[in-house]
Amino acid sequence: VITVVCGGVGAARLLAGLVQVVDPAEIVAIGNTGDDLVLHGLSISPDLDTITYTLAGEVNPETGWGRRGESWSAMAALEQLGGPSWFRLGDRDLGTHLFRTGRLAAGGSLTEVTAEIATAFGLGLTLLPMSDDPVRTRLELVSGEDVSFQEYFVRLQHDVAVRTVRFDGADAAHPAPGVLEALEDAARIVIAPSNPVVSIGPVLAVPGIRAILRRRRADVTAISPIVGGAALKGPADRLLRELGAESSAAGVAAWLADVAATLIIDEVDRDLASEITRLGVAARVTETVMRTPALAAALAAFALDGTVATA
Amino acid sequence: VITVVCGGVGAARLLAGLVQVVDPAEIVAIGNTGDDLVLHGLSISPDLDTITYTLAGEVNPETGWGRRGESWSAMAALEQLGGPSWFRLGDRDLGTHLFRTGRLAAGGSLTEVTAEIATAFGLGLTLLPMSDDPVRTRLELVSGEDVSFQEYFVRLQHDVAVRTVRFDGADAAHPAPGVLEALEDAARIVIAPSNPVVSIGPVLAVPGIRAILRRRRADVTAISPIVGGAALKGPADRLLRELGAESSAAGVAAWLADVAATLIIDEVDRDLASEITRLGVAARVTETVMRTPALAAALAAFALDGTVATA
Repeated sequence: VITVVCGGVGAARLLAGLVQVVDPAEIVAIGNTGDDLVLHGLSISPDLDTITYTLAGEVNPETGWGRRGESWSAMAALEQLGGPSWFRLGDRDLGTHLFRTGRLAAGGSLTEVTAEIATAFGLGLTLLPMSDDPVRTRLELVSGEDVSFQEYFVRLQHDVAVRTVRFDGADAAHPAPGVLEALEDAARIVIAPSNPVVSIGPVLAVPGIRAILRRRRADVTAISPIVGGAALKGPADRLLRELGAESSAAGVAAWLADVAATLIIDEVDRDLASEITRLGVAARVTETVMRTPALAAALAAFALDGTVATA
Repeated sequence: VITVVCGGVGAARLLAGLVQVVDPAEIVAIGNTGDDLVLHGLSISPDLDTITYTLAGEVNPETGWGRRGESWSAMAALEQLGGPSWFRLGDRDLGTHLFRTGRLAAGGSLTEVTAEIATAFGLGLTLLPMSDDPVRTRLELVSGEDVSFQEYFVRLQHDVAVRTVRFDGADAAHPAPGVLEALEDAARIVIAPSNPVVSIGPVLAVPGIRAILRRRRADVTAISPIVGGAALKGPADRLLRELGAESSAAGVAAWLADVAATLIIDEVDRDLASEITRLGVAARVTETVMRTPALAAALAAFALDGTVATA
């Protein structure tokens, strides 16, 4: 088993590469649910859906989230009523949230419902939420405002200074069924190139997960989402700085040093390898920007055995 | 003030006529919420929405419910996931339910949210739910099954025998703010041509409403939804029979005799006038099938003063 600790878009692309080089039946993806929200009464799991849509070839290729060929009639109607429309829900995407919400209300667990959705979309791998219990990533801004992850990420377009990040509910959360086993049993564990603070952070905050990763640190390879000092997507660079770390692959290495013995960094960051090594993390260098499915597959293969290094 | 006790489609059409002959600012419509449901986590008020969409010129003219020019992407996506899709929710219609659910979750009352929706759709009259408290119409079938109104009406297409009808929650429900006043202050009260059992019945079951109607009985005019022994739409005829009444305008008169001194019946039922009179209800005869807006306006005017009788 190969187990991947996942955020959203970066993880989804890595998984789309991984299924090209490993039998999907041998892959377990553990998804971040700290971004989840209840909006308009609907239970929404953005990172799980991004993974599902991406692997199903259903993701909107322009945005990296949401569904391909989407329409927006419900949002338009909601806007006409003066309802909150900052979190864009396409009509087809709504079908997923209606299903999830109905199944949860009928007593299904998020693990069960996630598996049902994954199966319906034809996914061959196992997609697990990190927990069936609610964990909510919240950010205290320098302005003093306290906001949910989606308010920060979507409504405020992460264009605000953050003082602290916390994961409400994490202390009381249990890992979802199968999560600890997938980490214990994995031949290799990969931490996807997702935001280490707000995408990987919530997963590590679920009691039990970080402890296993620390124990299995030698078998854990992380992939830096920071390339040339900047996040490929989202606010990872800024967040690392604001929380006192370095906005670089070395900053990522420091952030994840306790759980990952190896960090894959991009060619452009080759000069940081020695700094990363001094942090006690082995740096491996390859092309990490997954511009094509072939590059994603190469990165996934490199993460597993290093034989596909491009340099 | 003219106050109208309402169900769904028949009431909506009557109101569309009434606003042509009375200043909408002088009209209060009290809507049935016994049909309301929570589905996929969304709070849905079908009768209130049918009234709103109809008065806004937004109703689907073919079905009498739902929105004009509707698309069905969310339902299609839900069906692909194997979710329950017997209750059809169009994409634009979903916007209304998203808005309502979000506002209720934020602490708004159904009265407030209904007013907000009515205002956004440009309605000039006042639309009130019968209660802000949940009242749920349920039917015990002869088969022994116990079903919600929408399961009966939509899923089973009312093609089943009913043993009893009850209104769960009605005993503990309070009339919504403004409802009792609208009934007390009305110059005339009209009971719309809606199903007397499952559309008007829930409104009468809210404590306080029936008592006022009984006291004001002389000022209450009902319009029979049964024409020539058959319901114009839905199962009113069959339900009346199954619950021991007559499936006719006379059956409607008997059903509503305690709350309405006058019943308007259709030309085709002219022969029933004397039977209705013997029940202590004054029968007035006119054309009641609202095939056109002009006919709806004529019926509304007739209900108010009788000057537009066609025969």
